[in-house]
Amino acid sequence: MTSQDGDALTDAARLREADEPSSPVIRFGKDKPLRLDAGVDLAPWQIAYQTYGTLNEDRSNAILVCHALTGDQYVASTNPLTGKPGWWSMMVGPGRPIDTDRFFVICANVLGGCMGTTGPASTNPETGKPYALDMPLVTIRDMVRSQAMLIDELGIDTLFAVVGGSMGGMQVLQWAASYPDRLFSAAVLCSGARHSSQNIAFHEVGRQAVMADPDWCHGKYLEYDVRPAKGLAVARMAAHVTYMSDQSLHRKFGRSLQDREHVTFGFDADFQIESYLRHQGMSFVDRFDANSYLYVTRAMDYFDLAADYGGVLAHAFKGSKTRFCIASVTSDWLFPTSESRAVVHALNAAAGNVSFVEIDSPRGHDAFLLNEPELFTMVRGFLTGGARSRGILPPALADDWEAHS
Amino acid sequence: MTSQDGDALTDAARLREADEPSSPVIRFGKDKPLRLDAGVDLAPWQIAYQTYGTLNEDRSNAILVCHALTGDQYVASTNPLTGKPGWWSMMVGPGRPIDTDRFFVICANVLGGCMGTTGPASTNPETGKPYALDMPLVTIRDMVRSQAMLIDELGIDTLFAVVGGSMGGMQVLQWAASYPDRLFSAAVLCSGARHSSQNIAFHEVGRQAVMADPDWCHGKYLEYDVRPAKGLAVARMAAHVTYMSDQSLHRKFGRSLQDREHVTFGFDADFQIESYLRHQGMSFVDRFDANSYLYVTRAMDYFDLAADYGGVLAHAFKGSKTRFCIASVTSDWLFPTSESRAVVHALNAAAGNVSFVEIDSPRGHDAFLLNEPELFTMVRGFLTGGARSRGILPPALADDWEAHS
Repeated sequence: MTSQDGDALTDAARLREADEPSSPVIRFGKDKPLRLDAGVDLAPWQIAYQTYGTLNEDRSNAILVCHALTGDQYVASTNPLTGKPGWWSMMVGPGRPIDTDRFFVICANVLGGCMGTTGPASTNPETGKPYALDMPLVTIRDMVRSQAMLIDELGIDTLFAVVGGSMGGMQVLQWAASYPDRLFSAAVLCSGARHSSQNIAFHEVGRQAVMADPDWCHGKYLEYDVRPAKGLAVARMAAHVTYMSDQSLHRKFGRSLQDREHVTFGFDADFQIESYLRHQGMSFVDRFDANSYLYVTRAMDYFDLAADYGGVLAHAFKGSKTRFCIASVTSDWLFPTSESRAVVHALNAAAGNVSFVEIDSPRGHDAFLLNEPELFTMVRGFLTGGARSRGILPPALADDWEAHS
Repeated sequence: MTSQDGDALTDAARLREADEPSSPVIRFGKDKPLRLDAGVDLAPWQIAYQTYGTLNEDRSNAILVCHALTGDQYVASTNPLTGKPGWWSMMVGPGRPIDTDRFFVICANVLGGCMGTTGPASTNPETGKPYALDMPLVTIRDMVRSQAMLIDELGIDTLFAVVGGSMGGMQVLQWAASYPDRLFSAAVLCSGARHSSQNIAFHEVGRQAVMADPDWCHGKYLEYDVRPAKGLAVARMAAHVTYMSDQSLHRKFGRSLQDREHVTFGFDADFQIESYLRHQGMSFVDRFDANSYLYVTRAMDYFDLAADYGGVLAHAFKGSKTRFCIASVTSDWLFPTSESRAVVHALNAAAGNVSFVEIDSPRGHDAFLLNEPELFTMVRGFLTGGARSRGILPPALADDWEAHS
């Protein structure tokens, strides 16, 4: 699975995206370093983003969408590497729940990522080579800090909403804690205020799979023109199983065989679930950087919002005026409902404004990325209510808009 | 993690165990081939086993214990490779629930294993080299067929009981289906009558991790005097997470850091769960053969007892007189209670004799291997009742024995 002819273009394209992304990018010089939790200043650095819709005159209709572990800024537009539609185009777009006819939507590639925001695949200005492991480790708070600097540059003081699922939801919670006056509302989907022991365990399995691949070259694979494709594919396969539920795997694949009537008594992909997972692993490798995978999983592992507030999660939201919407999915075992409830309880304890929904779906963690009408209705309703209260939508228009849902 | 000086002895010892085990072994010549589901006859072949206790004059007190994926015949005695106590010494031994003062306990290494029963690490008599992938694939039914030939050799017609957890439980169910007249009772713990899609998925991740390791050498690593240690360690780490529950990981490790107060902003094992998993991975590599891991996981994947009976599980137990005891554990998400219930329902439909217990424990799938008093009580009670009914224990003795529980 190391570089083959057919992959050469993708390899080159992926490398180019890291420094010269297809999307807009804001570059910060040495005068505007990004202060990292690791205790170092990152400079120069850059953040790549996409916007959708139009910022209103008041600059009050901006929604920041935070992406999950392996997402990117192409939330509602074609990904330049894969040619596939935006990863959340059912949720974000004209007439969609996050309606780009009404709102100005911003989505930035996370710090540590590989789609144009500074990460381990970016060129280290001091050496002219990719950073690899010389890139300092980043945290969810660092990601949020970089996003705050981005909206400063875009001339936006207060966001109407910050919305995200999974690792995106962690960023939303961190936004609410770090910049309570800069967001009017916050939607946290299939997420939690900390990464559990089991979740750290699965991430560690993935990282060990990457680092076990000799083509990882202690992180310097880009210098050697190879990539740890097999290791990264295994990491993705393991992770992918955790994104689905036992139920959804059973419904989708069961024990069905792959194009045959009988097992082959061999190690080929006899079962459909096997070829599905292999495909997931291999296609991931084409679009994602292995070191970024290490960095971003590590950022999730380190996330424990309460720890920054003396172990009391409620203190993270003290005095917050932000409106919160928290949603979990019944069959999500990676971020089970109990994790969302812990956030709701903390918000209640802080006298926060919060609504909570547990969505009944068999689709597991990834449900938030799929066609889940209940989730769409909930997000649409939450944003409509907020927009009306914020005076962004005239009441009549809001009624009309709500009627679409 | 490839062969280091310190591991050389273990490597040699492990290789020797495959052909010349420390335990008793029965060798079958070309005149007694093992007919495999793959459609080939395996011959010569051998089966390595341990016994505990004494066979009574009637030859009616024999209990066969079937081990799980990475278990071995050393159920209640020191493992010659690791020097550790038997893997089920809390369950099997003098005065234990499976009481070797009363019963004659047999435990054999499974077909495809690496502790003396023929498997991919065994010497292929045709080449003088290890079989590697030239060993035909084996199934749970093949394992059971080999065990039936073993008890023939031991002069035992009918087993008082067959007992096993996880993959061991699959063998128990297969015993009941294949040889209904040769077992009086059957105890199936934390298991099921088929491997689910999610379970196949996790096994496939593990196999891909092994096969991604260049030291796997397309299975021929023993010939090249290397071993796919990193790949096998990753496979074991991924599997190990599935053997525990979210709860037990949280209780045992939570987000506790490893010998330090703060995270290191690096990829060392910051969290205790990480160093625990790394240790699990590395110690497994010292005692287990990578190709055996492929073979035995595949046997589990292929297991679907109902499929052999027109898709109706009840038909597998038609007319069975065997007494069944089925137990599941509340927090076991690898073989959830629903899988056990499916077996109970099938037995009910077949008018079978079955008792079922769901044990309330936070320890996940591995609970059956741990100190779970409720499980011990259940197994002891089940065997006592059966022994009394079978006339193995005089009523008075049985009372006395039961009082120990």
